[in-house]
Amino acid sequence: MAAVVEFIHTATLLHDDVVDESTLRRGRPTANENFGNPASVLVGDFLYSRAFQMMVEAGSMRIMQVLADATNVIAEGEVLQLMNMHDASLDEQAYLHVIRSKTAKLFEASARLAAILAKTSPELEEACADYGQALGTAFQVIDDVLDYEGNAAEMGKNLGDDLREGKATLPLILAMQRGTLAQRELIQKAIETGSVEQLSSVIAIVRDTGALEASRKAAMSEAQRAVDAAQHLPDGEYKDALVALASQLLERRT
Amino acid sequence: MAAVVEFIHTATLLHDDVVDESTLRRGRPTANENFGNPASVLVGDFLYSRAFQMMVEAGSMRIMQVLADATNVIAEGEVLQLMNMHDASLDEQAYLHVIRSKTAKLFEASARLAAILAKTSPELEEACADYGQALGTAFQVIDDVLDYEGNAAEMGKNLGDDLREGKATLPLILAMQRGTLAQRELIQKAIETGSVEQLSSVIAIVRDTGALEASRKAAMSEAQRAVDAAQHLPDGEYKDALVALASQLLERRT
Repeated sequence: MAAVVEFIHTATLLHDDVVDESTLRRGRPTANENFGNPASVLVGDFLYSRAFQMMVEAGSMRIMQVLADATNVIAEGEVLQLMNMHDASLDEQAYLHVIRSKTAKLFEASARLAAILAKTSPELEEACADYGQALGTAFQVIDDVLDYEGNAAEMGKNLGDDLREGKATLPLILAMQRGTLAQRELIQKAIETGSVEQLSSVIAIVRDTGALEASRKAAMSEAQRAVDAAQHLPDGEYKDALVALASQLLERRT
Repeated sequence: MAAVVEFIHTATLLHDDVVDESTLRRGRPTANENFGNPASVLVGDFLYSRAFQMMVEAGSMRIMQVLADATNVIAEGEVLQLMNMHDASLDEQAYLHVIRSKTAKLFEASARLAAILAKTSPELEEACADYGQALGTAFQVIDDVLDYEGNAAEMGKNLGDDLREGKATLPLILAMQRGTLAQRELIQKAIETGSVEQLSSVIAIVRDTGALEASRKAAMSEAQRAVDAAQHLPDGEYKDALVALASQLLERRT
């Protein structure tokens, strides 16, 4: 099941990089940059179908259902994100809806599958799913913070990629709420045009308004929600590892 | 299950048109032409995931397996076709392997699913699968013939699209076998470069060498194989319809 989740994740990354025209991921050229869009689209499809075959081998209809629902929500989230591109009026709630779908859903499914395979009680399964959802949300918020805070060499991807794609992520949404009219208009225009000409000004604004800090605080509260959910698990090294993972995530710099 | 197969088919078309950079399908602009590559890739993924959800509703592990295997073979066939691009040394067998995978496999799965849903004997299920495979192969060969024989207005897609993508389809493979050295070299170069500058010469050669006729003959023999497989079905209107479908396919002009 871990391999199934990895395959689905990799397939979405291959397609994402085509959609976003990304050139750098994990410090290396993306597959579309190296092999072109056709190979990235088709090999993504191949990985989806391999994941599907591997699920079938597990022989559990319940598992099939969890993964079918998860991939559907992820795809819906990706389409939603595309429709939201260059929309500077996106609010925090709409942003959260997108990242819960496109990112957190796979974390949630992954954690839920572990509970299903371990034949836990329904309550414990829900606790695992909650853990995954909260962790995935925290992960994506930090990811969106790093797009304005990190540096390309450390991060392994290009700074300002989100702005280039006209994505109104949490740092921008909060900066617009907190900034002056002029600052708000500058960010608004950057989202609407997808121009990175003003990237350094945008970065200065998200820093100066405390939007990055506030975004990290939002991530922290999601991570805390993950830790709380993990408290329902029996004591032991697995529980400790899950709690540690949620804490480490907040210190993520790349 | 018919809807599941349609969704999978539509998803592959959405992705195919991105991969092939096609602009016209069924006489109308393609989705990628109208809405861009990102929407086509993501909506294709969405349709795959919806199909997956709909399969799960059927609640049959056997059906899941047939469809998982089919989508995997289709994806493999698409990747294979991509790897074969601009390869003028492709022979008839390699061509058949690709079209059995990318096209005929979905026809086969579709026909097999009907047998599974009808709870037929294993022998009848295999006859249905054989029917689908043969029909799908005949369909694709005719499709490849029309790319040199039809006209864009009737066909609803652009003449010479396959050549533009450097695809060595059956008409070209047979024309190279039958043509003079000069004719062979002209086609070879067109496949390798993907240039359609010589399209009218290529069309003249596939016509003059009898390669189109020979390709139609190959399609006819596949259609006959479909008819033979259908003979295993109980007499009645369904059997008649399947036999009629195989015959009509050969007369397809668009």
